Amino acid sequence: MILGRVVGTLVSTRKESELEGLKMLLVREIDASLSEVGKIVVCVDAVGAGEGEVVLYAAGSSARQTKATQNRPVDHVIMAIVDQFEVSGRVCYTKGRDD
Amino acid sequence: MILGRVVGTLVSTRKESELEGLKMLLVREIDASLSEVGKIVVCVDAVGAGEGEVVLYAAGSSARQTKATQNRPVDHVIMAIVDQFEVSGRVCYTKGRDD
Amino acid sequence: MILGRVVGTLVSTRKESELEGLKMLLVREIDASLSEVGKIVVCVDAVGAGEGEVVLYAAGSSARQTKATQNRPVDHVIMAIVDQFEVSGRVCYTKGRDD
Amino acid sequence: MILGRVVGTLVSTRKESELEGLKMLLVREIDASLSEVGKIVVCVDAVGAGEGEVVLYAAGSSARQTKATQNRPVDHVIMAIVDQFEVSGRVCYTKGRDD
Amino acid sequence: MILGRVVGTLVSTRKESELEGLKMLLVREIDASLSEVGKIVVCVDAVGAGEGEVVLYAAGSSARQTKATQNRPVDHVIMAIVDQFEVSGRVCYTKGRDD
Repeated sequence: MILGRVVGTLVSTRKESELEGLKMLLVREIDASLSEVGKIVVCVDAVGAGEGEVVLYAAGSSARQTKATQNRPVDHVIMAIVDQFEVSGRVCYTKGRDD
Repeated sequence: MILGRVVGTLVSTRKESELEGLKMLLVREIDASLSEVGKIVVCVDAVGAGEGEVVLYAAGSSARQTKATQNRPVDHVIMAIVDQFEVSGRVCYTKGRDD
Repeated sequence: MILGRVVGTLVSTRKESELEGLKMLLVREIDASLSEVGKIVVCVDAVGAGEGEVVLYAAGSSARQTKATQNRPVDHVIMAIVDQFEVSGRVCYTKGRDD
Repeated sequence: MILGRVVGTLVSTRKESELEGLKMLLVREIDASLSEVGKIVVCVDAVGAGEGEVVLYAAGSSARQTKATQNRPVDHVIMAIVDQFEVSGRVCYTKGRDD
Repeated sequence: MILGRVVGTLVSTRKESELEGLKMLLVREIDASLSEVGKIVVCVDAVGAGEGEVVLYAAGSSARQTKATQNRPVDHVIMAIVDQFEVSGRVCYTKGRDD
């Protein structure tokens, strides 16, 4: 999975019928210093994430293994909201403190 | 999914029989400022997209989860036309206004 | 799918038995100006492509959705020969004229 | 598979229910000289790896082929701890000696 | 598939049980001039390749389509040893002559 931050939202009315009812969020990958890196990906939200939150997203066929996304043409899904992570023994992010 | 803009069309008569009747469009990824970035990918169109429109496309096995593309040798599909998206609370694109 | 040009051929006698009888071609991705970009990939040919031709290839599990490649350890397949493509209303390639 | 080193840990309480009970580790790819290269990925641990260890991880649908990860929205898994590897006849890493 | 050269070996005793008995080799991608490019990947060997040989490897779910790798957490497999390949009519590699 990849560490990312929710940076925006997206609205689409004309879409594959299998996508009805799915919330789509814009996510940008972050590195250990919480800097946004790389490009924006559009993820289906399976966990009720909000803008600014640090999340984990899965890509590829694994993105269809949540209840919300099964058998749907979805290739990126947010499947966890991060509470804390540390690298080399140093806490890099704590939810609430570093948002 | 990836944000892209439809930039062209493609015609092929000699192809896998499973591809008969599928419309193929050339799509280029865009960033939050609507600039075209990265390379051209060829997507099957599952939603009736037209040239110039901002769309979402899915890649990999997820591209075979639409009615049009099931069990076909297709690895990129346009599965939504974007009406609007915003990043950090700022509207980056509104269909009709920014095309 | 990705736009590419067939640039070469490959012979292998010691290989997985599932690969017997499959023709393998070397393909290099091209951009809208027909310049070869990126690295060489080795594709199984599902449509009878020849050296120099502009083709579409699919990658990943979608490469196993042709009759020739089903259930085989193949991750790139040529599934169409391109007749013509255009970008922003300009014809970039016409088979026969631009080969 | 990719060679990586476990560099950190991650805690998440709000997540897809299918992820309950899975340990998630932060891993950074390494090259033949053991230098960390590329970005951090978050892997489910299927083998009891610890921080600092050199491991192999698999990505994509193959990451769901372990007992721990079957049918779960997981796209990276640590499936082996490396004891030793050599390149061009030179031992690059021996567990215990080079950690 | 990708053209690569076998550059090394790897030993692991603590691993997913599904990996028992599989030989793992380090492979580096090569270009048309046989130069090693890109990073090292760890492939399961399905064809009895040896160090220094030019091989083809498949990635992703296609890597699980060999007898050796079925249903195993393997995402790269060597599925052919290359005898010869040519680009633009020029022979770039002949096994035995260019090893």
